Amino acid sequence: MPSNLPDPQTRAALIATAHAAADIARDITLQYFRTDRLATESKRADFDPVTQADKGAEAAMRALIHDMRPEDAILGEEAGFEAGTSGYTWVLDPVDGTRGFISGTPTWGVLIGLRDAAGPIYGIVDQPYIGERFEGGLGRATLAGPRGTQALETRQVSDLSEAFLFSTFPEVGTAQERAGFEAVSQRVKLTRFGMDCYAYALVAAGQVDLVIEAGLQSYDILAPIAVIEAAGGIVTDWQGNPAHDGGRVLACANKALHAQALAVLSTF
Amino acid sequence: MPSNLPDPQTRAALIATAHAAADIARDITLQYFRTDRLATESKRADFDPVTQADKGAEAAMRALIHDMRPEDAILGEEAGFEAGTSGYTWVLDPVDGTRGFISGTPTWGVLIGLRDAAGPIYGIVDQPYIGERFEGGLGRATLAGPRGTQALETRQVSDLSEAFLFSTFPEVGTAQERAGFEAVSQRVKLTRFGMDCYAYALVAAGQVDLVIEAGLQSYDILAPIAVIEAAGGIVTDWQGNPAHDGGRVLACANKALHAQALAVLSTF
Repeated sequence: MPSNLPDPQTRAALIATAHAAADIARDITLQYFRTDRLATESKRADFDPVTQADKGAEAAMRALIHDMRPEDAILGEEAGFEAGTSGYTWVLDPVDGTRGFISGTPTWGVLIGLRDAAGPIYGIVDQPYIGERFEGGLGRATLAGPRGTQALETRQVSDLSEAFLFSTFPEVGTAQERAGFEAVSQRVKLTRFGMDCYAYALVAAGQVDLVIEAGLQSYDILAPIAVIEAAGGIVTDWQGNPAHDGGRVLACANKALHAQALAVLSTF
Repeated sequence: MPSNLPDPQTRAALIATAHAAADIARDITLQYFRTDRLATESKRADFDPVTQADKGAEAAMRALIHDMRPEDAILGEEAGFEAGTSGYTWVLDPVDGTRGFISGTPTWGVLIGLRDAAGPIYGIVDQPYIGERFEGGLGRATLAGPRGTQALETRQVSDLSEAFLFSTFPEVGTAQERAGFEAVSQRVKLTRFGMDCYAYALVAAGQVDLVIEAGLQSYDILAPIAVIEAAGGIVTDWQGNPAHDGGRVLACANKALHAQALAVLSTF
């Protein structure tokens, strides 16, 4: 269900806040990327380190949002939910892809999503080291990067047999979820792993056709949904329902691929 | 067996040639990266597309080397071997990681290696989109990138249980080779997939501790060997023998890890 666009003044304020948050998170995360200053505390036994980058960037983004948009709510990976009164909620993942981050690969990103009661209305997927910012919603769908600014538009590859699929499997998911992923993977032209949130950005940029994942949190997926949908794609769970609260996710470049992948995944 | 260093004038000429080749390959590959101009001809049934970038960049590098170093031999992925008389052979992979390239990820690279009769003496792993150039050998071990130029130095993580492992498995290799990889993977702290040549660059940069692969060609690995060894690492095959002719490769940040990984892999 599409949300109504906010008035132009509110829209401008929301977009300015999002970019300011992305700028400050970029600065802080880069201070820790590929340095020896990483303090890798494990918050789960199965290796999911929280870095100083994660904590510092989220705290800075929260302070900035409190200042620029004091009536908005905030949901973040590190510090949870803070209620607001405006009807808008910022959904933050300061370092999506911590395993990529700690191993020096530029596939991690800063995720800044914005939702109203109906769902995602805007998102930024930022890649600080490369200097790429994927942005979608509130009338925008752009990539600003090493080559300047260009429009984001998903691909029109219409058959699974020609599609490129990305996933973080085999790293995540239950055995059943992995079986669902593999059932689709067997039908596509190319499967690649390990790209974290960068895979969703590449769907929006028209480079990749599908991302299939499971076990996600809202802050992992809300911003990518806004960016992909603004670029012409579709994101749902494995039953075709909204995915912005997390769980199992199917992100597709177009309706034809979505229908084909859903026919497979919905049986798992 | 370490090679003797060439005289300073020859060394300067070799390094200048390598950088000129990397510059021209960077320009040409970027013309095709994330554009619709990719003409993906398949040269193998199992999906290994050759792009115009691959062909154009290798042709341009060959022409440049013929001009700057007419007596050197050249081995390249696309056009094979051309003999020379100097004792030096350039070993070129214009786009290592074509699957990454065609799906828009910046994990592919341009590999420019240089060998003498004994083996690798110099290499460049260039990442055109990010603008990173990893260089090692002939007295150099540096990364020039978005943050300027810094020294390359491998990590001193000394136990497999603390190590980060990268690989292109599960995409490549026989069942037996995959079993060998998995035997090591079970003992490390973190395994990541799908980084192509970028994984070797991250070993040299002290971000990753191990890369294990199989089924490689000389042009896939000769330049990475030179860069990693210049940064303090060790690269051999799975029996501890030289790996610069390809096949099974074990790249390690240090001797301790190499001994531990080799003890596992040598039984496969």
